Amino acid sequence: MSKASTRRSAPSWVTALTLAGPHGGDILSSERRNSNLDIDGLARLLLTEHGIQLQQRLLNVLENDPAFDKSGNYFDSRIERFKTSVSRAKRLHQLQQLHNWSEDELATAIELIGEPTAFSLHWKGFLPTLREQGTPEQHELFLRKAENMEIIGCYAQTELGHGSNVHSLETTATWKPSDRTFTLHSPSLTAAKWWVGTLGFCANYAIVMARLILKGKDYGPHPFLCQIRDLTTHTPLPGVYVGDIGPKVGYNTVDNGFLLLNHVKVPHINMLARFEADELATRHKAADVCFLRRFSRVDPDRDTYVPPHSPAVIYGTITKLRAALVSESARNLARGLTIAIRYCAVRRQGTDPDSKDEGAERQVLDHSLVQIRLFPRLAESLALAFTGQAMMKLHLEAKAALQIVRSGSGDESSMARRAKELFSEAHATSCGLKALATTAAVEGLEACRRACGGHGYSSFAGIGSIHADYMPSQTYEGDNYVLMQQTANYLLKTASSVVKGNGPSKATAENLARYLEKKHEQVRFDLAQGEDLVAAFGWRAAYLTFEILYRREDDGKTPNDLQVDYSLLSTAHSEFFVVSSMHQKLSSTDTISKINVETLSVTWDLFRLYALTRVVQAAHEFYKSAALDVRQVVAAERELLPGLLKSIRPHAVRLVDAWKLPDWLLDSSLGRYDGKVYEDLLYRASELNPLNRLVIDTRPDRGSEDADSIASRQSSRLVKL
Amino acid sequence: MSKASTRRSAPSWVTALTLAGPHGGDILSSERRNSNLDIDGLARLLLTEHGIQLQQRLLNVLENDPAFDKSGNYFDSRIERFKTSVSRAKRLHQLQQLHNWSEDELATAIELIGEPTAFSLHWKGFLPTLREQGTPEQHELFLRKAENMEIIGCYAQTELGHGSNVHSLETTATWKPSDRTFTLHSPSLTAAKWWVGTLGFCANYAIVMARLILKGKDYGPHPFLCQIRDLTTHTPLPGVYVGDIGPKVGYNTVDNGFLLLNHVKVPHINMLARFEADELATRHKAADVCFLRRFSRVDPDRDTYVPPHSPAVIYGTITKLRAALVSESARNLARGLTIAIRYCAVRRQGTDPDSKDEGAERQVLDHSLVQIRLFPRLAESLALAFTGQAMMKLHLEAKAALQIVRSGSGDESSMARRAKELFSEAHATSCGLKALATTAAVEGLEACRRACGGHGYSSFAGIGSIHADYMPSQTYEGDNYVLMQQTANYLLKTASSVVKGNGPSKATAENLARYLEKKHEQVRFDLAQGEDLVAAFGWRAAYLTFEILYRREDDGKTPNDLQVDYSLLSTAHSEFFVVSSMHQKLSSTDTISKINVETLSVTWDLFRLYALTRVVQAAHEFYKSAALDVRQVVAAERELLPGLLKSIRPHAVRLVDAWKLPDWLLDSSLGRYDGKVYEDLLYRASELNPLNRLVIDTRPDRGSEDADSIASRQSSRLVKL
Repeated sequence: MSKASTRRSAPSWVTALTLAGPHGGDILSSERRNSNLDIDGLARLLLTEHGIQLQQRLLNVLENDPAFDKSGNYFDSRIERFKTSVSRAKRLHQLQQLHNWSEDELATAIELIGEPTAFSLHWKGFLPTLREQGTPEQHELFLRKAENMEIIGCYAQTELGHGSNVHSLETTATWKPSDRTFTLHSPSLTAAKWWVGTLGFCANYAIVMARLILKGKDYGPHPFLCQIRDLTTHTPLPGVYVGDIGPKVGYNTVDNGFLLLNHVKVPHINMLARFEADELATRHKAADVCFLRRFSRVDPDRDTYVPPHSPAVIYGTITKLRAALVSESARNLARGLTIAIRYCAVRRQGTDPDSKDEGAERQVLDHSLVQIRLFPRLAESLALAFTGQAMMKLHLEAKAALQIVRSGSGDESSMARRAKELFSEAHATSCGLKALATTAAVEGLEACRRACGGHGYSSFAGIGSIHADYMPSQTYEGDNYVLMQQTANYLLKTASSVVKGNGPSKATAENLARYLEKKHEQVRFDLAQGEDLVAAFGWRAAYLTFEILYRREDDGKTPNDLQVDYSLLSTAHSEFFVVSSMHQKLSSTDTISKINVETLSVTWDLFRLYALTRVVQAAHEFYKSAALDVRQVVAAERELLPGLLKSIRPHAVRLVDAWKLPDWLLDSSLGRYDGKVYEDLLYRASELNPLNRLVIDTRPDRGSEDADSIASRQSSRLVKL
Repeated sequence: MSKASTRRSAPSWVTALTLAGPHGGDILSSERRNSNLDIDGLARLLLTEHGIQLQQRLLNVLENDPAFDKSGNYFDSRIERFKTSVSRAKRLHQLQQLHNWSEDELATAIELIGEPTAFSLHWKGFLPTLREQGTPEQHELFLRKAENMEIIGCYAQTELGHGSNVHSLETTATWKPSDRTFTLHSPSLTAAKWWVGTLGFCANYAIVMARLILKGKDYGPHPFLCQIRDLTTHTPLPGVYVGDIGPKVGYNTVDNGFLLLNHVKVPHINMLARFEADELATRHKAADVCFLRRFSRVDPDRDTYVPPHSPAVIYGTITKLRAALVSESARNLARGLTIAIRYCAVRRQGTDPDSKDEGAERQVLDHSLVQIRLFPRLAESLALAFTGQAMMKLHLEAKAALQIVRSGSGDESSMARRAKELFSEAHATSCGLKALATTAAVEGLEACRRACGGHGYSSFAGIGSIHADYMPSQTYEGDNYVLMQQTANYLLKTASSVVKGNGPSKATAENLARYLEKKHEQVRFDLAQGEDLVAAFGWRAAYLTFEILYRREDDGKTPNDLQVDYSLLSTAHSEFFVVSSMHQKLSSTDTISKINVETLSVTWDLFRLYALTRVVQAAHEFYKSAALDVRQVVAAERELLPGLLKSIRPHAVRLVDAWKLPDWLLDSSLGRYDGKVYEDLLYRASELNPLNRLVIDTRPDRGSEDADSIASRQSSRLVKL
């Protein structure tokens, strides 16, 4: 449907209207003139030079491709949006082949399109699982076709009755030696696969996590490839009941689906069975909640189960995924901030109640109550960007350690222990950070929407849609509440080990040991000093760890009693990691060489603002750990924080510019780079909005039947109710 | 469109499936058996006997009326939903006439339908303004027709560039003595009326707030009636550019509209001009941000402006509106809680990680981390219900005082002063409470949605839609951030007056005076005692008031410097009012006579839970006011709070039952009274969901053009892309 043909035009007296006050463009230009922040230098720190260039290159490809015309996004019904989403996904595949895009390039393209894509779970769930867990033979049979999208797949794990606790999944895969098949079956209603992206409508194949039943014994969930729809007619195969699970708060461009299987047989080759006997043979009791991946198989000749090795490798994949989510959260939060800060600079509202001056209204961005809602989030977006980089570095260290062990160089047992420790540290840290970052993004986006006042509620603001689409990040790749428990468990284990005198090797253990050494001393942290701020966060995290450890061990509290404390502990640990990461980043010679002194100074202000805001919010925890006293926090509230807001204010617009988010991605009337807020709102409302082409009879005395009488009134614009 | 005809049916092997675990109905029955809470008694406290019966009577009318069939709500596009909304609004008018419903009955009916209604702003904005501000002649000319809906109107105040600050509205109404008309005009783009409910599509009349210009002098905004559409063809009149402003995060069943006027003339009679010279002649500088209503007029014979009297009456209307919003917020929050608590009782997830038992999973409601997210909100819903009642009582007291003054009995000047004081107290308190209550509802609904885990994200949960629809309550009837500044201003003024030794007459002043008397004593509040809890909240509010007063007066801080402190102060004052209201309600002999001892005891637990949760959250403020020390708060966190969660747990399901929210209102798979969560999710997804009737070609090598090849594959289900 051509969008242009459906527009209506405003009368000439409307198009001749101008703004009463200064133009948005002039306001933003003046904001940009009044700060000499080095936007490009800061952008390179946040996104890397490669990332900036990649984004620009892809933007050039996508922006003018008609498949990605966004003009209907805010108006279309779910069905229309989904149809468009499928067209876009198909076009993306064509472009990927045409330009030979890597996975990273494809991911960046999807981010620029700005909505979850219909084939996402084929690309992000089906392909990686096939690649990582398939044997060479399985790659030959399935992976090639999947890469060419001759088959479209999904990853079907979650069930209607079972989410985070994958050990309770119900779907079964029963081995039948006589014909060397597995029978996949949903034994109950709650066994229905549910929430599976790309399943509802698009997929013709699914990787089904099902309990392997062999000679009557249950070996727990394993991955099985199962064809679910005919490759030509796309109709579900016999024994398969499949469909879309219905509309959601967001994410409606994806067909999250359900799947029930009625004794569906698949051949032996369909059990994913990559097997690496030569890998590090450590056995972790995998507490991971998201993807349960095992490298195991059924020996079809002996009818026996060959158990998995090396779950550490699996940890690695998930850790990488979560590190990427931290960076993604930062960028998503930055979308909201870019919109809100530009709009609040353009918008004028309210005069000083005590002022006699009846002159122009004040920029909304000059209200301190708006600054305190936006600037700490702005600081957080930078902090999370640097944290994502630090988390990725930690992941790569753990991976490198594993490779050294694999290559057989060095002392096998101590290297293996070190690799295991690094993996645990990276894994636990990534759990807490994923929870912190996705929550920060989702809550921050809502704060940005509210900072835009009434207009923030319009779809054209462009914040409501990201917020709704990003909400499930708090649940997928591990529910945040569950992940925080895992981080806390790791901290408690580490603390036990430190108490027993085991030498600290990792950052977490080092911090705990440092605290134990000094805990009886009178500590004194100066909130104006960066190092002291970091140390105060470390102190608070360590205090909470031992406090909870003692309550569990000495007071006999159960993990359920302590769930709330665990989540607070995870947050404290994660915030410690965030402030440390940002502090390290800003102190590094690399950073100092990349940006000028004024830019660095503003960035340090943001560091202090982030840290002090968290201190005030969690003041009670800093008090009970004796890290700070009330007088210090009161001083921070009254002097340091207001001072930081004032010093950041002139740079706010340039700071969000540094995120380099193109208008095309933002798709927002309020967040336009050129500040044409009001012009764009009126244009979209009056000329693009399809509701304004509708006619129905609103008179209550006319029933909805009397279409004839409406027709006689106004035949040209009639829509039957 | 008949919904039934579009359903598809599941195959017999699917319909034969049962649940793996216990049935939801059995779980909820057992929950209800295990508590002997007096649901009906508690319901009478929350809703009154009259309210309960009214709801049931209206439910009987609405539930089986086909106009209110909700089965399409979660699937329909915005245009479909809006069309349905108009049909429903028309039907509501018919039913109102048929059953002779009062305004309250109509409002209850709208609440039961569970979505904002297309004619809401006719009923809630246009009619009351006409009634209150129209002269008898204007009533004759317009009000009768409006009541019969021969004309449909809206209240057009907010402009594209101007929201909370009504004094900067741009639209003008210029008096022309020669033909005794006002010319209504939009001088700029930002003068466009914007966000006006019922304007975009339905209204043929608008009350336009426009600056009265008389002999070149600007008298500020006044209300003018303006016809905007033809009564027969519904096409906009000449010089009128009007339409819907486009989709929003929620509220999409209402046509929030825009309006630009190009020199549109209206006769003298169209300026709303009720004039009551006999009313209390106090002059308030009306700082109100929401409805700016003036009782003033233009004398057409002398071409002069006759200024307004008695803004106190106007305050009264807004105070009543905000008191009603407190109660409405409580009920909306209860909708989310009813859904979340029933679902968390049915849902099972996670085993104790330290337990060796591999048995059944635990009810989600047994997780303490879920309890701490839901039970304090549950306590808050009750607290807000009682607060709404107390606020309404305060409003009625102020109104009664005014009537005594009007009737002329008693000492005129002291009575007038008392009436004025009461109005100010009620007004300021209602501002802060409206902000607190609507924020509590909106944030609480999101917390409820998240407590439902993944399934909370489904539209069928029924929480996302209320949340989205209720978000604007934080902005309408006064933006919460602006209202909080007003409450703080009142507190500071009162504190100044108390310092000067003016005798306290109202609760706020009494609390401030009590604090001043004792501030140098060592105070000691026992968090286990109800009275002490209330007193601690009073102490903290008073401490903050004087702290900010001194910083403003002695340190020379400006209101903008103190905006953040003002908002914290407003919250502290409002929370003091909330805990006082609940404490008074539970202590009253009326309450004690209405519910049994066990029910009262659980309700006291909820009071303590609400208060202690706020104490922990604002611990820093209690410390700096020296009301509490760290040891006390730590003890509350470790002992009191967990104990309260445990004692409330057995009653949670019956507590939400006491809100008496019918399934028809909730429209939720997760919140069904009978607990059939999974059955309903599958039914809605697989049988009602229209996406499952769609066919499009997902193969990337097929362009979207090749409809023919898709058709040949599967002609019966083809939809052209």
